[in-house]
Amino acid sequence: MSFMDNKGISKAVINRLPRYYRYLGLLLDQGTERISSGELSRRMNVTASQIRQDLNLFGGFGQQGYGYNVAHLYEEIGKILGLDKSYSLIVIGAGKLGQAISSYFGFEKRGFKIEAMFDRNPAKYGGVAFRGTSIYPLEDLEDYLKEHAIDIAVLAIPAEPARTITPVLVNGGVRGIWNFAHTDLEVPENIVVQSVHLSESLMQLSYKINH
Amino acid sequence: MSFMDNKGISKAVINRLPRYYRYLGLLLDQGTERISSGELSRRMNVTASQIRQDLNLFGGFGQQGYGYNVAHLYEEIGKILGLDKSYSLIVIGAGKLGQAISSYFGFEKRGFKIEAMFDRNPAKYGGVAFRGTSIYPLEDLEDYLKEHAIDIAVLAIPAEPARTITPVLVNGGVRGIWNFAHTDLEVPENIVVQSVHLSESLMQLSYKINH
Repeated sequence: MSFMDNKGISKAVINRLPRYYRYLGLLLDQGTERISSGELSRRMNVTASQIRQDLNLFGGFGQQGYGYNVAHLYEEIGKILGLDKSYSLIVIGAGKLGQAISSYFGFEKRGFKIEAMFDRNPAKYGGVAFRGTSIYPLEDLEDYLKEHAIDIAVLAIPAEPARTITPVLVNGGVRGIWNFAHTDLEVPENIVVQSVHLSESLMQLSYKINH
Repeated sequence: MSFMDNKGISKAVINRLPRYYRYLGLLLDQGTERISSGELSRRMNVTASQIRQDLNLFGGFGQQGYGYNVAHLYEEIGKILGLDKSYSLIVIGAGKLGQAISSYFGFEKRGFKIEAMFDRNPAKYGGVAFRGTSIYPLEDLEDYLKEHAIDIAVLAIPAEPARTITPVLVNGGVRGIWNFAHTDLEVPENIVVQSVHLSESLMQLSYKINH
């Protein structure tokens, strides 16, 4: 059976899947072979019925009374998340945030490979970032995308240039934009935008501190 | 009337408030004085009834037929988010991510002031970060917190040290933790943890690219 053709999975479930994946990865590292939904629930601080319900959406991986096979479940959730494939990335913006994202060690082993960075002023960084990734001038982006199939573009630049560059990325064939700019982006329906709005996250924190 | 004592506001609404705040800020910058829920809805790409419903939770700010006073609504949502106060922050981890967060220009003008950074190895960075913020050795954190009232600690370090340091922060009186470590944190009920899990965000992007 294929887990790739599931429709109608709610956003909340999709948001929970990476967390399941993380906990299962930790269990694997500890050498745990099987886990019950009850034990997983205790560790993850969600209800066991929530876990069973979520995983049933993808066909259910547990056997009543036997719990889940950790390695199998980890692999299957990885497939659902698309982590059995590899992705080519470019990072727009070689400033502190762009470099922080590029240097995050965990992404490459998950199949997310940063091919190049682009910046208004590559000379500022000597034209080369962490681990030897080339930093090209932003003017070269359009031509670069003609010659390279890029799956994901990371926007680590302010809101205004992010909006200007988005059509270049869309026309250049990227499939997804990981957006750190503090703006929404207009893209065609077939392009995915996943935003990380840091200042909104901080505002949520200050809201919660006060309530 | 006070907007600070609202209970039972759903997480989804809280997550939307910073976005309202962002759009109202843009409208203010453009000199817009009043806006209808219909026009705000068109710009924000949510339904007008959603907007009215969300804002009614906080007492409602619109007059039928007159729309919202942009400056007033901006200010009131700012108050709800706690942005009428100021917060003292420390950043744990002076690596690329810690420095990216610290140097983000937008936070300070919203009242989030970074007082100090802490790192295992401050000498690596010459003991001083962006804009002259001091970087202290991690061993000094406990004593520092005895002498300084810190509202928010930012964790820009890996999962394992993040879990080790969390009790020090809790005992040191911080009210909230902005957690960039790829782990959940155990804290007492009165402490707020707001997590930014970058790798989970990237996995959500790869999921959406494949579905």
